Amino acid sequence: MNALERLHALGLSLPELEPVKYSYVRARQTGRTVYLAGQTPKSKAGYAYKGKLGEAVTLEEGQECARLCMLNLLAAAHEHLGSLDRITAVLKVNGFVASAPTFTQQPLVINAASDLLVSVLGEAGKHARTAIGVPVLPSDAPVEIDMILEVE
Amino acid sequence: MNALERLHALGLSLPELEPVKYSYVRARQTGRTVYLAGQTPKSKAGYAYKGKLGEAVTLEEGQECARLCMLNLLAAAHEHLGSLDRITAVLKVNGFVASAPTFTQQPLVINAASDLLVSVLGEAGKHARTAIGVPVLPSDAPVEIDMILEVE
Amino acid sequence: MNALERLHALGLSLPELEPVKYSYVRARQTGRTVYLAGQTPKSKAGYAYKGKLGEAVTLEEGQECARLCMLNLLAAAHEHLGSLDRITAVLKVNGFVASAPTFTQQPLVINAASDLLVSVLGEAGKHARTAIGVPVLPSDAPVEIDMILEVE
Repeated sequence: MNALERLHALGLSLPELEPVKYSYVRARQTGRTVYLAGQTPKSKAGYAYKGKLGEAVTLEEGQECARLCMLNLLAAAHEHLGSLDRITAVLKVNGFVASAPTFTQQPLVINAASDLLVSVLGEAGKHARTAIGVPVLPSDAPVEIDMILEVE
Repeated sequence: MNALERLHALGLSLPELEPVKYSYVRARQTGRTVYLAGQTPKSKAGYAYKGKLGEAVTLEEGQECARLCMLNLLAAAHEHLGSLDRITAVLKVNGFVASAPTFTQQPLVINAASDLLVSVLGEAGKHARTAIGVPVLPSDAPVEIDMILEVE
Repeated sequence: MNALERLHALGLSLPELEPVKYSYVRARQTGRTVYLAGQTPKSKAGYAYKGKLGEAVTLEEGQECARLCMLNLLAAAHEHLGSLDRITAVLKVNGFVASAPTFTQQPLVINAASDLLVSVLGEAGKHARTAIGVPVLPSDAPVEIDMILEVE
């Protein structure tokens, strides 16, 4: 199975991305390195969840948000590359979790995105990672993730 | 017009940077990739604004801070490269906005820096971007931005 | 003296790293660039400090935390490279300081890690840097740091 088939086998598909509203682009490449812009768990239907972990958003909801961020990132990678199979390594994942000052399980939230990445890309999906708490994210999103890829 | 002429045509100029007080450098290069250290809206006259968006600092003031951060980044790039025209692509911009927990317009703040970048560098200025809220920044600055460049 | 000898001359040694509990890896390389995952001041004995700067954690304790983060990062680099002497440049250090909203000395905290890096690696240890405040970090750690290396 290729990466897209593995995604479909999980019952998932690449979301359709909305136009970027601001003065940036979703992906920028130098040599074999691709930088992807931060993605929130936004779909065409809007945000499934808003708010902070440790307040309105539960751990499970935060993990679902992390998976939605990762699906958006994979859609951006697919748009840029034409195929997810051109990803040879995920170099770095940065996970930002909107957190009440008492919430300390950021790794558990972002891990849902990491697990999805490895399920879809296999060995190529293994990545270095940083997960931190933030007080608030754009549009009151609970999670934002960006990443850096090595491509063919 | 070259990049510096476009900056001047906007009525702007590269600020003079102060010496770095700590054990880091403003720019570090590997191959064609240059990493620029985070810049706050500090000038020789000090900080025009201090505090957080959603509290003491308005959206418009935050946008002015973002532009001042970007001018400092461009000055650091010029210092490292000798000419802004050697920038072939802005790969990534990371924007950190000191935010009250209820302030969710980080993209609007950082977009002022993105707009300036595209105005000065044209196509080369288009970049992937991540904008997040943070509770507080060094010296109580309202905004901090860093970026990664591809150069000749 | 090589890098490890300089570390030992400071009375320090590389800590033994614990297995990664989540779906990521400590280091990922493309070409001559190595991305290191975020490290907190955790040792086999646990966390020496927990909490936030400007609240339970003093500036000096935060600086000790920053040094412990950097020792973990150097241990991760050593594990990946086999020798710290293969590091030709530290390209970027990102420092995240768990901060009360009134604490604005993030650069002073992270500088303890920067100083250690330069002491151990010399010229190669000079790096671009971004230091920001965050409301909370995984396991309530006071500091988290990641970095990007250029290697032989």
